Amino acid sequence: MTQDSKQINIALLGLGTVGEGIYKVLQKQAPMMMQKLNTNINISKILVRTPAKHVSKVSDPSVLTDNYDEILNDPSIRIVVEVMGGIEPAFTYIRKAFEAGKSVVTANKDLIAAHGSELIETAETNGCELRYEASVAGGIPIINPLLNSLAANEITEITGIVNGTTNFILTKMTKEGMDYEPALAEAMRLGYAEPDPTNDVEGFDAARKIAIMAQIAFHTKVTLSNVYTEGITKVTSRDISYAAALGWVIKLLGVARNTEDGVEVRVHPTLIPEDHPLASVTDSYNAIFVHGDAVGDVMFYGRGAGQLPTASSAVSDIFTIARHQASHASSVARDSVFRSLPVKTIDDTVSSYYIRMIVEDRPGVLASVAGVFGNNSVSIQQIIQKSKINDADSELVIITSPIHERHIKAATDVFKTSPAIREIASIIRVL
Amino acid sequence: MTQDSKQINIALLGLGTVGEGIYKVLQKQAPMMMQKLNTNINISKILVRTPAKHVSKVSDPSVLTDNYDEILNDPSIRIVVEVMGGIEPAFTYIRKAFEAGKSVVTANKDLIAAHGSELIETAETNGCELRYEASVAGGIPIINPLLNSLAANEITEITGIVNGTTNFILTKMTKEGMDYEPALAEAMRLGYAEPDPTNDVEGFDAARKIAIMAQIAFHTKVTLSNVYTEGITKVTSRDISYAAALGWVIKLLGVARNTEDGVEVRVHPTLIPEDHPLASVTDSYNAIFVHGDAVGDVMFYGRGAGQLPTASSAVSDIFTIARHQASHASSVARDSVFRSLPVKTIDDTVSSYYIRMIVEDRPGVLASVAGVFGNNSVSIQQIIQKSKINDADSELVIITSPIHERHIKAATDVFKTSPAIREIASIIRVL
Repeated sequence: MTQDSKQINIALLGLGTVGEGIYKVLQKQAPMMMQKLNTNINISKILVRTPAKHVSKVSDPSVLTDNYDEILNDPSIRIVVEVMGGIEPAFTYIRKAFEAGKSVVTANKDLIAAHGSELIETAETNGCELRYEASVAGGIPIINPLLNSLAANEITEITGIVNGTTNFILTKMTKEGMDYEPALAEAMRLGYAEPDPTNDVEGFDAARKIAIMAQIAFHTKVTLSNVYTEGITKVTSRDISYAAALGWVIKLLGVARNTEDGVEVRVHPTLIPEDHPLASVTDSYNAIFVHGDAVGDVMFYGRGAGQLPTASSAVSDIFTIARHQASHASSVARDSVFRSLPVKTIDDTVSSYYIRMIVEDRPGVLASVAGVFGNNSVSIQQIIQKSKINDADSELVIITSPIHERHIKAATDVFKTSPAIREIASIIRVL
Repeated sequence: MTQDSKQINIALLGLGTVGEGIYKVLQKQAPMMMQKLNTNINISKILVRTPAKHVSKVSDPSVLTDNYDEILNDPSIRIVVEVMGGIEPAFTYIRKAFEAGKSVVTANKDLIAAHGSELIETAETNGCELRYEASVAGGIPIINPLLNSLAANEITEITGIVNGTTNFILTKMTKEGMDYEPALAEAMRLGYAEPDPTNDVEGFDAARKIAIMAQIAFHTKVTLSNVYTEGITKVTSRDISYAAALGWVIKLLGVARNTEDGVEVRVHPTLIPEDHPLASVTDSYNAIFVHGDAVGDVMFYGRGAGQLPTASSAVSDIFTIARHQASHASSVARDSVFRSLPVKTIDDTVSSYYIRMIVEDRPGVLASVAGVFGNNSVSIQQIIQKSKINDADSELVIITSPIHERHIKAATDVFKTSPAIREIASIIRVL
């Protein structure tokens, strides 16, 4: 440090994968930070459950503590970086940090999805900043662009591939014709899927991310319970090939829309045209497509997870707060939730639908299927396949015109009682 | 305005296409700004050459003035938005604004490419902000992500499609097999190309944008004269088909690299693999691919020009400054140029090369071509075509291994003196 340079002390809560990544990136970037801000960012405390277990990970083990009060009561610590994950004790710790006048950086999507608006309020009340770029899509800048670079827009739609595990699995199924189970096994072998993959493959991880983005973009409270969530476990390689024949690919999308009659927020497998920019986002990459009234369509692409990409976002947030503190900003106002828009149920959303059905192969069945759709206000746009799959049955693939989901449900309810309809094998929404 | 709400007065310099876009977006977003910041952003002056000509464009013609001093001497005006374009008088006006303590938003890439680092310094000296998101790639957030969301990274490479006109032309040539001239004519007819298209098709526009991004990313001074620039006027539909047969597409790329022996900054047609994310950026869309040491690869995609996309960036910058002013930041430090890295000449850069040559069709010519490459240290990776184009001549397409450009030049200099080599028809770098 030169004589007139400054130091900002920070504390890490947690030293798992992301915590270690932040530690590494901060060490590496220290000289550049000095040149950019004339400020040294010093990790003066790291909260862990068992300090003895983490000694080998840090150059100075005296920074390790198992007592959060040491951090709270240290007025030299101006930024707390929460990378513990989960709701508690992270939620309590962050609130206490704000009450002690410390700003917070977090990578915790569970917490932000559940209590984001409350935490933003607490930060503002205490003149502190809350930054959470790392909580959505790892290294991809999306939260800060929504808050700043796109602030002049009314955002009407966000469509994103925000889970790398499922995108890897769907890419394997698409490119190599694999079925779901072996593709999942491959993802596990390569470390893209966790031993219990539920959170990813059932869409819960993506649901949190789209809820967080929707709340920022539409300025209205969106919680996880508002998100209709459907994972990829029922997607078959058969559906993927039918889609390919029609010029579509199947992606697990998070979709958030601000429509005239309310906000919709949902996660589900979706057919998208193969020339859509999201269609070429393969393997474990993520991308988020945003539509704003002035900017039109923009897309952000990159690594949605991983130690260093996530640390990239968290450390950049630390730098931004350090910059604000260095310039003596009394508090840098963040966007808050100032609208109260209704959130629609999935029944009230409108899509086209791809429906694959197994039906009895006899005269009159097709007419009866068409009749049921018609009686429920569903127009058929295209019947793209009708092939025998055994002596008695054949397979139908139908694309509907855009229609409210409740009509599709009503039609399929009728099919469930009809003996000529053996099975509704797949229903997939079309972008 | 409510009783405790604030007002920030701003002035526009210029009321052309972008100026009008900013005017429109600010009117439209006024209520939202009030909710976000409790601040009204009021355009209190607009500088134009002939006020009478612009009366119909504004709701209150008394804001129009042809006297910059009225803006400079009005202490209530805290932000000046420069959308005149060109170097002078914009350069002088912006410096004077800083000296008067006003922050500046500009969309002027000519000026930032020529005098960016000087203006950043003047802003800092005077405790003001300079923001120029709109100067590069229209509505796509790229300057602010480089400065903030990616600040934790050492950026090693930026590769971008940053000119919509040339991307439109190349897309037409690729998808419809058109030649350059008719594709250019189509771009003019649709308003994507200006009556004098030189600035776009010769790569000068892209050169300014890559220079601006390189300077921010590498923290070293990069001016337009450092950028090797080659446009698309020599790209033929023949080269595009050869490329397609090999799984490549041809794009006009801006490339900036921070290598061990210096910085390289260049604009030229480039062969890129068809599964590269930039390959699917078609029509007039832009995209910028960034590699950082922590984040890995990220890409930003959207409309790189146009009235409202450009206004989206400029107005977002205005909001950001207004936010800082509302929070009484004494000054929000910006990154400055703190390194002094050497800039390489094009001769010292390394690429693979696609070379199409017309050669005399007789025994021994191929051996002689291979010999000349070998004598100049150039390895041939692939000879992908050798077909007769008339009785006497045939066409050779050669892909080299990666090599310093000066060796390619040395080899082609030899070919120019050889009667068996009729023509070096194309030399295109490979990504």
